[in-house]
This record gives sequence, structure tokens and C-alpha cells, in this order.
Amino acid sequence: MKLVYKGKTKDVYELEDGNYLLKFKDDVTGEDGVFDPGANSVGLTIEGMGRSGLKLTKLFFEKINEKGIPTHYIDCDIDAATMTVKPATMFGKGIEVICRYRAVGSFIRRYGLYAKEGMPLDAYVEVTLKDDERQDPLINEDALHMLGILTREEYAILKDLTVKISNIVKEELEKKGIELYDIKLEFGRIGEDKHIALIDEISGGNMRAYKDGQYIEPLDLEKMLLLK
Amino acid sequence: MKLVYKGKTKDVYELEDGNYLLKFKDDVTGEDGVFDPGANSVGLTIEGMGRSGLKLTKLFFEKINEKGIPTHYIDCDIDAATMTVKPATMFGKGIEVICRYRAVGSFIRRYGLYAKEGMPLDAYVEVTLKDDERQDPLINEDALHMLGILTREEYAILKDLTVKISNIVKEELEKKGIELYDIKLEFGRIGEDKHIALIDEISGGNMRAYKDGQYIEPLDLEKMLLLK
Repeated sequence: MKLVYKGKTKDVYELEDGNYLLKFKDDVTGEDGVFDPGANSVGLTIEGMGRSGLKLTKLFFEKINEKGIPTHYIDCDIDAATMTVKPATMFGKGIEVICRYRAVGSFIRRYGLYAKEGMPLDAYVEVTLKDDERQDPLINEDALHMLGILTREEYAILKDLTVKISNIVKEELEKKGIELYDIKLEFGRIGEDKHIALIDEISGGNMRAYKDGQYIEPLDLEKMLLLK
Repeated sequence: MKLVYKGKTKDVYELEDGNYLLKFKDDVTGEDGVFDPGANSVGLTIEGMGRSGLKLTKLFFEKINEKGIPTHYIDCDIDAATMTVKPATMFGKGIEVICRYRAVGSFIRRYGLYAKEGMPLDAYVEVTLKDDERQDPLINEDALHMLGILTREEYAILKDLTVKISNIVKEELEKKGIELYDIKLEFGRIGEDKHIALIDEISGGNMRAYKDGQYIEPLDLEKMLLLK
């Protein structure tokens, strides 16, 4: 097992059978010790964060797989905080796909002239480049295509999958009276046919969930969702 | 004649017949006394800048009208530095449409991970909101539609007109051995049928033009283009 990448919140190991092992860490992104899912640096370490994120990821990825949507997920070991995944190739140097149900965060920072904080948005999808140095810039379909990051056909699939996956997460949260405001997903190309699949994780760290107008911290979200 | 708007580089007066008069000023956008067509504040005043910008605007708007592309242009008075235009309504609180033939400026600041300075781009079109406070944020088609700024049909027309108009400007520059790197256009809705038309101006102040790899200042561009 060879360490191939040290990420902000996960380390990646290559397995002998060609699959990969993701090790979920207790580090979370944020600034000045305050958690922010959109931040580009590790802001703090929260005991149990890795396992908690993996529990939710297992929940969501299994649900998403059940619906026939491809993901890189194979299985996981909660105690070890590891997930086994299929190898995937990235779009360019990595993109993030955001689905928004309410206007918060960077949407308001950009479009505050037209949108009020908390305004409903109809599963609006946007793509940003993973580029810490340039603060993950927004990019439109034409530029993604022109820069060779993905084709127009892939963009259409990506957008469709993003709405479907986000709606699955949204419905899961609604069962516990929790509202999904926005969510950030990552995709890659998997298998010989290079089909588009959900990769990375889905946990409190890449979404904003609210109950009765109050933001729910990632660890609390896991407890609320997994409580029987 | 009533002053209805004081802009950074132009003042707008309402005429008694319902048309408007644009007074081109000698103020140009920039920072710290250096001209920057993308800047949001007036950086310096250049004697003759207003008239110079109007001369180029007349040249380009007349060419564009000749090709059957709608504009707000009626006529102009170079000595007075004024242009008479039809009334237009804005898209939302104003948008800017950029057409890029080479990667420079904000394109590189955003997509420098994928694009080298000066890299050719194939008449790539992008839209930004006019919002000084939020540094004119980039916006995609879905958000423009969702926020009620323009319809999908209008977006398609806008993109098509932008490429056509930019190509007209590009060809005009090429006659003098000048290369257009990028250009920023403004559009509005005109007439009872609310058809989309080019508004504002087209001068050195809203494009980047280069000769032999050297950027051409707006006043020099006017001289080079209007020299017989």
C-alpha cells in the first residue's frame, strides 16, 4: 500500500489490486479555527471527524449506488476510517460541482445584487476549478470545453448527475426535518469506458444543512442522520 | 435636456423626443493613474479621450449597423463629444459581455492553471454582472436565467451577436495590422418588441488591441484606425 497523495482532509493510498484506499483524517477546512466547507486551507482538527465523515459518505454513496448512479465506492472500514474506491481520472486538474437550493456563501458574495441571503434556488448547478492559488474560480460550460477540461456531452451528464445526487441527499435530510442549502460534489471518469462517476466523499464537510434556520455542524449532522 | 445619469466615462441626458444623449468625458477607468479597461474606478483624465472614443464608436457602430445588427446608435457630434441614441432597457442592473481571442487579464487571473498568457481562444464569450462592489462577478447562463436577468433565448441571441460584432471589430483592426485580444460589449432591449441591441460604446477603452505583441493605448488605437 503506497501513499500517493496527501490531501487536506484525506490521504490516498494505492492498493495492489489497482484500487485505492482513502484515509479520512480529522482535519477540516476552515479559517482561523472556524469550520468553512468552502475554505481552501485546514482550519482545525476535530476528534472523530474522519470517521464521522466516512459514516455519512457510506450512507449516501450506498443510496446513490442503489439508484444506479455510478460512484467510485467499493466498501469501507468505519473503525479504520478508510474507504476502498475504484481508480478514477480527474477532469483537468480537478473540478467541483455545486448544487444550490438556497442562496448562501459564495453565491451571495457574487450575486448579492440580485439575491437575498437564504433565497430559494432551483437546484442551480455551477462548476468551479480546484485551484487554491486562484480561490477555486467559477467557470462556465464554454470555457470548460475550450480548455479541454470536459466535453459538452460530459458537461450535460455532469449537470444531470449533480441534480439527481443532490436531490437524493436532500430527500435523505428531509426525513429528519433538515434542509439542504447547498452541496459540493466531485466527479471523475471510471473504467475502460471512462464513464462519469461520483468520487471523493459526501459528508457534512461538503454541504450546508440547516434545521429551523440554524446551520448544522458536520458532526451534529452525522448524529442527526444516523440516529435510529 | 435633463441629466439622468453621471457615469465614470459618460454622462447621460434625456432628450425631449424620448431619445438620449451620451456625453463622452475625458475620464478613463484605471488605478493609480494607469489605464485599465477592466478597472471599476476613474483612474485618470486624458485630454481628448472623450472625442477619441466617440470617433471609434461612430466608426464601429456604423459598420455594425450596416451589417444589419441592431444598435442604439442614431448619430453623433464629434466636436461636442456627444452621441444620440435610442432608449434601451438594461438586463437586470446591467451586464457586460466579453469576447476573447487571446488569454489575457481576468481570464488568466481565473484560469491560469490551464491557460498561458496570450494563448489563442476561439471567440470565447462570457458574461459578467456590472457590480463595482462585487468586482463585476462572472455569471453563467443558468444563473442569468434563474435570477431573471435574461431568458435562455436572449442568452443565445446575446452570444451570437457578441461573436458577430467582435468579429467585425477584429476584421477592422486587422486591416491595420492590429490584433484584437479581447473586447467588452454592452447590450440592452430596444423598441416595442424589446429586441436585443448593442448599446454603450466601442472604443479603445473597452478592448485590448495589440500590434507586434505590444498593447496599443486607446488614443493611439484611434489614430491608427482612423488614419487614411
